Amino acid sequence: MFKINENYMKLPGSYLFSTIAKKVNAYAGANPDKEIIRLGIGDVTLPLAPSVVSALHSAVDEMADASTFKGYAPDLGYEFLRNTIVENDYAPRNCGIKADEIFISDGAKSDSGNIVDIFGDGNIIAVTDPVYPVYVDTNAMSGRTGVYNQETEMWSDVVYMPCIKENNFTPEFPEKTPDIIYLCLPNNPTGTTLPKSELQKWVDYANENGSVIIFDAAYEAYITSEDVPHSIFECEGAKTCAMEIRSFSKNAGFTGTRLGFTVIPHELKCGDIELHSLWARRHGTKFNGAPYIIQKAGEAVYSEAGKKETLDQVKYYMNNAKIIREGLIKAGYEVFGGVDAPYIWMKTPDKMTSWEFFDYLLNEKNIVGTPGSGFGPSGEGYFRLTAFGSLENTERAIKRITE
Amino acid sequence: MFKINENYMKLPGSYLFSTIAKKVNAYAGANPDKEIIRLGIGDVTLPLAPSVVSALHSAVDEMADASTFKGYAPDLGYEFLRNTIVENDYAPRNCGIKADEIFISDGAKSDSGNIVDIFGDGNIIAVTDPVYPVYVDTNAMSGRTGVYNQETEMWSDVVYMPCIKENNFTPEFPEKTPDIIYLCLPNNPTGTTLPKSELQKWVDYANENGSVIIFDAAYEAYITSEDVPHSIFECEGAKTCAMEIRSFSKNAGFTGTRLGFTVIPHELKCGDIELHSLWARRHGTKFNGAPYIIQKAGEAVYSEAGKKETLDQVKYYMNNAKIIREGLIKAGYEVFGGVDAPYIWMKTPDKMTSWEFFDYLLNEKNIVGTPGSGFGPSGEGYFRLTAFGSLENTERAIKRITE
Repeated sequence: MFKINENYMKLPGSYLFSTIAKKVNAYAGANPDKEIIRLGIGDVTLPLAPSVVSALHSAVDEMADASTFKGYAPDLGYEFLRNTIVENDYAPRNCGIKADEIFISDGAKSDSGNIVDIFGDGNIIAVTDPVYPVYVDTNAMSGRTGVYNQETEMWSDVVYMPCIKENNFTPEFPEKTPDIIYLCLPNNPTGTTLPKSELQKWVDYANENGSVIIFDAAYEAYITSEDVPHSIFECEGAKTCAMEIRSFSKNAGFTGTRLGFTVIPHELKCGDIELHSLWARRHGTKFNGAPYIIQKAGEAVYSEAGKKETLDQVKYYMNNAKIIREGLIKAGYEVFGGVDAPYIWMKTPDKMTSWEFFDYLLNEKNIVGTPGSGFGPSGEGYFRLTAFGSLENTERAIKRITE
Repeated sequence: MFKINENYMKLPGSYLFSTIAKKVNAYAGANPDKEIIRLGIGDVTLPLAPSVVSALHSAVDEMADASTFKGYAPDLGYEFLRNTIVENDYAPRNCGIKADEIFISDGAKSDSGNIVDIFGDGNIIAVTDPVYPVYVDTNAMSGRTGVYNQETEMWSDVVYMPCIKENNFTPEFPEKTPDIIYLCLPNNPTGTTLPKSELQKWVDYANENGSVIIFDAAYEAYITSEDVPHSIFECEGAKTCAMEIRSFSKNAGFTGTRLGFTVIPHELKCGDIELHSLWARRHGTKFNGAPYIIQKAGEAVYSEAGKKETLDQVKYYMNNAKIIREGLIKAGYEVFGGVDAPYIWMKTPDKMTSWEFFDYLLNEKNIVGTPGSGFGPSGEGYFRLTAFGSLENTERAIKRITE
C-alpha cells in the first residue's frame, strides 16, 4: 500500500487565509444584505498600471504570430527581465548581484515554499514570531519542525524569535543557533522593519554561525525610512550567507498575475556546493518558467512610465495606511507598522483574543482583518489590517471601527 | 552549519533538456552559418489560436479596470475553468469527475514534479522505461530512489518496466509490487499507447495491490485510435487508485503560456485520508494559482471556436508526424509512435548509441532530436523526433536525414 507524507497530518488546521476565506464566505452567505469590507488578506485592489497593461497586450500579440511566438522560456527566466531587475533593484544599491543569480518564478509564495526542497533534514529553522505562515508550514510539511503543541501553538524544533511591542519588534539572537533563518522585512504581519545597522548584525551572525538567511523582501517598495535597506545585499558579506525573495504582487499589483524572483549569489555555499546550482536544478526539473507575457509585464514595471505608475499605486496604498494608522490611534488603539509597510498591526482591545476580535469585526462591523495569532504564538492579542483596499472602503472601514 | 538536500548530489548530470540546450547552443555558437532545425525538445511552434488570443486581450482589459480587476485566484483555480474542463473532458466520457476534484496549476511539469510532496518516504515507485525524466528525477530529489548505478544508469530502488519493440511497448506487471506507478499515455517518448482493455488491467492491478497510479495524459489530444482512452477515469474503478495530470501545452500551444491541471478524485484514499485533501493543502501553502488571464485563455480553448482552432493545430502537427514516420520508414529506418502521439520513436541506425546519433544528426545534418537513453536505460539505441516543428522545417529535416 502506498504511503502518504504523514507530516501533512501534523499541520494544525488549514492554511490561515483559507480558513479566513471560509469564515467570510459563510458569513456572507448567511447575510447577503451586509456589505463586507475586506482588509484581511493582503490582496491589492488597484488595476494593473497602464504600462503593464500595454506590455501585456503587446506580448499577447507576439504570441499570436508564428514569427514572434514564444514556447518554453529559458530555465531561469528571460534575460531581458533578469537584466532589468539587476539594473534597477541591485546595481544602484551596489549589491554586486549579477543577472545569472536571479531566478524568475511565478511568485514569492511559491519560492518561499519550494525553497525547503534544497535543504536537508535536520536543519533547525528560526522564524521571527509572528510571521507569514508559509515558512513554518512548509518546513512542517518536510518534517523539519518536530512536534506541534496544541496549547502553546508552537513546534518543538522551531526556534521562535518573538517580535512584540516590548522589544520594539526587533528579533534577538536565539539561544539555540539556527541553520536557516527566515527574515521577512518589512515584516508581514507587523509592518515593522530593521535599520541597516540591525540587519548587518544578522548578516554577521549568519556568517559566523554558518547559518543561511532566507530574506523575504516582498514589501520593499513600501519602505520610506532612509536607513532601512531595500535588499539584504546592501549589507556587507550578505552574499555568503543570504538569498533574497522578491515579488511583483505588492509593488505592481500582480497578486492575480503571478511573478516573482529569488536571488541566490554564487558565493552562497555549503562546503563546495553552491545553493545556486541546487535551486537551478530544482527550477529545471519541477518548474517550466513564468509565462512569457507575464515576464514582459514584469519588464514593463521597470520602464520609466511603469516605475512612476506603480510608485503612485504604492503611494495610494500608503495613504490608506496613514488613514488606518491615524484613525485607530485617534480612537485610542495601540498601533504599529504602516510606515514602511502596507500593514497595520494593532493590539486587540479589552484583552480580546485575536480570533475573538476577528469575529467581532466580521459580525459587528462587517470588516475582515487577520487574527494576529494566525501568524504565530506571539501574534496573539494582535490584529492585522491591510492598506490594500480602496480609499473609499478604507475610510468607511475606519469610520465603522472607531464609531 | 546548514545542510543541503544531499539527494540532489546523487542526480546524474543535469536535466536532459538543459543538457541538450547547452550542446545545441555550443554548436550554434561555433557554427553561426549553419541553420539548425529543432525536432528535439517537445516545444510547439504554431502561434496561440485566435480564440485564445482574443480571450487573453479581453482578460488583460479586465485587469486594467478596478471594477473587473482580479487579485489572488481561488486556491484550486477559477470555477469557470474547472466547470468547463469537467463539461468537455470528463462528462462526455462518463468519468464521473466533479469540478472540485480539478486543481488548476501552472503546468503538468510542475504538477508531476510537485506531487512527490504528498507521498511518504519508503514508497517504491515504478516507471515505464523509457519515460519523461521528471518522474524519476523528482523522486530521486526526495531520496526515494536508492543508489544510482553509473553503468546500468538505473536507480537501485526504482522499478523499471521496459517498453521496447520486443514487447510492443506494453509494460508488464513487475515482480516487485510498486506503491506508486507512473503511466504516461500516450507515452513520451515512445509515442505508443495502450488500448482501454490493457489500461483497465493496470487499474485493477493498482486496486488489488494498494498502489496509486499517477496518470500523465499530457498528449491525450493526439489520440486517433478508437480504442485508446483519453482519460484513465474511463476505466472502471480508476477513481479509487488514480490521479490524472493534464496540460494545455501540446493541445493548445501553451508551452510558453503555462497552464495545466491535476484531477484527484475524493475516492482516492490512503486509509481514511483523501489525497485530495493533501494536494489541496499543498496548493494552498506553496502555490498561489495560475494567472487569471491565463485561466481565461484556458477557458477559451474549450469554446466552440477554440476547440476547432486547436484541433486544427493538432492535425497540423499530426501531419508532420506522418511525414516523419513515413519518410523514415521509406528510408529504411525502424519507426514507432506518431499515430496517437506527436512523437516518433526510431531505432538508431548501425548500432549507434543514442548520443552518438544525436551528435551525428546535430553535426552532419544540423538537426536536433532527443537521445532515447535520456529517457531511461531501455531508451538506449532509440531516438525521439517531435512533430512540433513547422511543416516546412519538418519536410526539410526529413529530406536531410534520408538523403
